Amino acid sequence: MSVTAPKGFRAAGVAAGIKASNALDVALVVNDGPDTTAAAVFTGNRIKAAPVLWSQQVLRAGIVRAVVLNSGGANACTGPAGFQDTHATAEHAAAVLSGRASRFPVGAGDVAVCSTGLIGERLPLPKLLSGVDAAARGLSRDGGADAATAIMTTDTVSKTAVHSGQGFTVGGMAKGAGMLAPGLATMLVVLTTDAVADASTLDGALRAATRRSFDRVDSDGCMSTNDTVLLMASGASGIEPTPEELTAAVTEVCVDLALQLVADAEGATKEIAIEVRGAASEDDAVEVGRSIARNNLVKTAFFGNDPNWGRILAAIGTTAAAFEPDEVDVAINGVWICKGGAAGEDRTKVDLTDRSVTVSVDLHAGGAAATVWTNDLSMGYVHENSAYSS
Amino acid sequence: MSVTAPKGFRAAGVAAGIKASNALDVALVVNDGPDTTAAAVFTGNRIKAAPVLWSQQVLRAGIVRAVVLNSGGANACTGPAGFQDTHATAEHAAAVLSGRASRFPVGAGDVAVCSTGLIGERLPLPKLLSGVDAAARGLSRDGGADAATAIMTTDTVSKTAVHSGQGFTVGGMAKGAGMLAPGLATMLVVLTTDAVADASTLDGALRAATRRSFDRVDSDGCMSTNDTVLLMASGASGIEPTPEELTAAVTEVCVDLALQLVADAEGATKEIAIEVRGAASEDDAVEVGRSIARNNLVKTAFFGNDPNWGRILAAIGTTAAAFEPDEVDVAINGVWICKGGAAGEDRTKVDLTDRSVTVSVDLHAGGAAATVWTNDLSMGYVHENSAYSS
Repeated sequence: MSVTAPKGFRAAGVAAGIKASNALDVALVVNDGPDTTAAAVFTGNRIKAAPVLWSQQVLRAGIVRAVVLNSGGANACTGPAGFQDTHATAEHAAAVLSGRASRFPVGAGDVAVCSTGLIGERLPLPKLLSGVDAAARGLSRDGGADAATAIMTTDTVSKTAVHSGQGFTVGGMAKGAGMLAPGLATMLVVLTTDAVADASTLDGALRAATRRSFDRVDSDGCMSTNDTVLLMASGASGIEPTPEELTAAVTEVCVDLALQLVADAEGATKEIAIEVRGAASEDDAVEVGRSIARNNLVKTAFFGNDPNWGRILAAIGTTAAAFEPDEVDVAINGVWICKGGAAGEDRTKVDLTDRSVTVSVDLHAGGAAATVWTNDLSMGYVHENSAYSS
Repeated sequence: MSVTAPKGFRAAGVAAGIKASNALDVALVVNDGPDTTAAAVFTGNRIKAAPVLWSQQVLRAGIVRAVVLNSGGANACTGPAGFQDTHATAEHAAAVLSGRASRFPVGAGDVAVCSTGLIGERLPLPKLLSGVDAAARGLSRDGGADAATAIMTTDTVSKTAVHSGQGFTVGGMAKGAGMLAPGLATMLVVLTTDAVADASTLDGALRAATRRSFDRVDSDGCMSTNDTVLLMASGASGIEPTPEELTAAVTEVCVDLALQLVADAEGATKEIAIEVRGAASEDDAVEVGRSIARNNLVKTAFFGNDPNWGRILAAIGTTAAAFEPDEVDVAINGVWICKGGAAGEDRTKVDLTDRSVTVSVDLHAGGAAATVWTNDLSMGYVHENSAYSS
């Protein structure tokens, strides 16, 4: 069901020939209203792809009537011509949607655009525009699954999630396999809801949700030029949840999708949850978790089923978080193999045969906690990313 | 010749049985004077190994008469007992050296200690102390090569360098293969000189040299608990160079050793020099170079012989350095495949068949420049680091 689970949304995914494989590569999601409020968060990378620069402008008004997404090319580092391509895509989508007697005229300034794929190459614009035509013709209340498939790149499965709140629904789709910190393979997420909410409320809910979901997934520490998380509200349920209710529902969908991203990370053989407790602040807990998540030596150790707590301690030691080196405890899958900064329980007790791994860190410096998700660094990751573009 | 190239130093390397392989694993370097001034820099990791904590105390007085080094165990995260082991090692070395009629009595507080190997396990102290005995017996003016061999862990070759200044000499040995940022496999460097220099002059020369050598090598972004760079001066040449002359000589040896570390990095198939120019400041240039050096997607691309400049731009975009996204130029091996933030020369012109790769970045934001050295991220790195401790 994906993005079409909430009332008021139609979607489609089509094969426009942008991908050489002829797989689905253009998605369109349209908000039929009655509301068209929206919010988004974008990559923190200073090198932003053309569709990010465009969509940032669109979101300033807090209104999005449709979003066009393509895989097969990131349209990043493509200069002014690339930006014109994105602009032309939005103009074309607006014209097509207006001509198809949508419930209201659509302007290009109400159309967000997302792209993912190789950086530095122009998109084949005629193919993309034909894809927009085909997608507009194919829009349906059942189109969420196809749309989720059309945004896949190195993903092995499409990612969708739905949460039903009190009288309203939040749906979402995501792509990304290397990913958030965010990863260069780019994370794109479209979230929809039929709740009634103004743009400011949506923005607050989205920022709170992403802060505790996508922002805490760190697969390979690489930040993409294209990452976008877009939330659109149709108001079609007629229900206006409290900001807290909306935030909770959006967060649930975001965490669900974030964990699907970790599970499908490039080459991953382990899904690792790093639970940091006893921190002086939540920021400290996140910093420590992220430092462990990004450490190549920790990640390769997990690939080798090696409970190498020394590398975890060394990663913690690179942070500015409050802790005393001789007070840190570390457990892997519940076995506290490091107590007080030195060897604890017998490391041979740690069972690392499962794909799922939990690292617990107690800093003994306060009452704050946070969880960061990552995966191992495998032969498969190196293979996939050394062969990606050539 | 290594650390025994300058006059006034003797060294030895012996097999003490700490390594299961029975390879050389204990090294001793003794300064016979007449001077015994010294300076050192240590890991920035807050989790510091016992020998680092010990040696930091030793260096406070600016005097080092001898340094004991062992491979086969890092003595990190070993608690108070581990610190006592280091203390006992220094006491034992001091007693043995004093008993052997060294030119002057040696106190434990004048003996630095360095260890490298797995984190979290106690050292076999009796073996280490016997090794110190054997090394003391074996001390010679030709012992530099054995000492350099005895500190190897995953290194495939020993690393030594010598530079002859005007009437004085600087020698050095290094170990490290995953390494500086500094890497967890630990970087240990001992530098010697027969120049006349007080501790403060040595400190200034060493900090200036490491800042432009070891601090600009970033193999895997992982900072060790044990990294130590120690510089000892015997004054045996009778020559007192200017601080500038001394700094230049020490820097030359450090850069030589640093490049040997990059060349021998775990699993590396490429040695990559990242030359950043046109920066607003040297710090900006280093930040940009380091960001590229640490990016797993850039590093895997080079392993795949893929001139993926988009990933390089995305890495630059994560920095706070001064630049405009549409003004950045990037060349790989002299081919400017990115001009003004977009595609430039034909990427097929880039020849990546050589082991040596040069990435040039022009930020067009000023006149500062810096070079950072790294290597690719290979299958071999993952294999070696997933199998290291278990």
